[in-house]
Amino acid sequence: MRLRHIKNADIKLKEYSDYLAFNFEEYKERKSSLNKDNLELRVEIGCGKGKFIYNLAKLNPHIFFIAIEKFDSVILKALEKNKEERLNNLFYIMADASNISDYFDHEISVLYLNFSDPWPKNRNSKRRLTSPLFLNSYKKILAKDGKIIQKTDNRNLFEYSLMMFNNNGFVFENLSLDLHKTDIFNIKTEFEEKWEDKGPIYYLEAKLSE
Amino acid sequence: MRLRHIKNADIKLKEYSDYLAFNFEEYKERKSSLNKDNLELRVEIGCGKGKFIYNLAKLNPHIFFIAIEKFDSVILKALEKNKEERLNNLFYIMADASNISDYFDHEISVLYLNFSDPWPKNRNSKRRLTSPLFLNSYKKILAKDGKIIQKTDNRNLFEYSLMMFNNNGFVFENLSLDLHKTDIFNIKTEFEEKWEDKGPIYYLEAKLSE
Repeated sequence: MRLRHIKNADIKLKEYSDYLAFNFEEYKERKSSLNKDNLELRVEIGCGKGKFIYNLAKLNPHIFFIAIEKFDSVILKALEKNKEERLNNLFYIMADASNISDYFDHEISVLYLNFSDPWPKNRNSKRRLTSPLFLNSYKKILAKDGKIIQKTDNRNLFEYSLMMFNNNGFVFENLSLDLHKTDIFNIKTEFEEKWEDKGPIYYLEAKLSE
Repeated sequence: MRLRHIKNADIKLKEYSDYLAFNFEEYKERKSSLNKDNLELRVEIGCGKGKFIYNLAKLNPHIFFIAIEKFDSVILKALEKNKEERLNNLFYIMADASNISDYFDHEISVLYLNFSDPWPKNRNSKRRLTSPLFLNSYKKILAKDGKIIQKTDNRNLFEYSLMMFNNNGFVFENLSLDLHKTDIFNIKTEFEEKWEDKGPIYYLEAKLSE
């Protein structure tokens, strides 16, 4: 996503600190006071402006959701958008996901990767959220039978992801090369609504092989 | 492929019996007189009008190729097309591939599946050349490090194939969701030339995991 810098985003974010941790360490400290009913946990890495996870959380009050986003200007948009109707089952973390495996332990039932940055240059491939580095870190945070659901409009990222999931011990559970032509349940992200006419949306559900 | 019946195709085919077996049993009997130099062996299931494998064999005189096609009218077209310039490293078998594993034994280095019948109805899914039934039979005929190369324009067949290859112990070696936009080496089939403007050609190379 192209970023539009928001002035004083860091200060404005403080208004939302009831349901926002400013880094993983803070999340860790507050973890025991969140999700007290020990609901099923689902996480989105890179929630962007947050429409997807907000609507999903609203539809599923008996599941606890965590939205992770690294850019302050972006997570601020997500928080401002829904400030009038806060959901008790949705918490935000402002953090880069590269060390996510230090903060979750075999507890995430579904991990969402929506329209992640494709990092097109080969030398940046490690930064892709479906690189072997990330896929291996997800193995530590996914619950038993937990799965990853990826969608993207980026062909090269999806080709790469299919290869990496396949090469790193994940089993495909569902797959579409044109999501909007299927009846797979789908909540569109802001990005998806904007770009869906340009080409197909690719979709994959993958779980760890046993 | 829609079939156009050719009158007396069975009789006309006899003209080509030097490099055609009329069934797998006949191939088995003649096997010792073919590929005497024990060249690398590659096989195409469903060669159609045969342009792909003929051109590939012409480019690779040090590889032995076998083209399998079940329909007499179709294999006749393939044979008639190149009757003036026969290749010593290309042999044809008129057979249905469903019992192919009885006739090859860990000896095929590359198995080509080009624009196979998608068998769109679920009740026919076993007939797809990438069904678990077929994939398991290929495990017996592929050489060590042998691979399967599939291309198709049929989205549903490719989605199904990705799932089945992944779920049945194959490792993806290369993959494209738009073959003609890549620099992957490609010889177009007759079908591919006719339909390529209608949408992307999907491509997968998969080998057995060790």
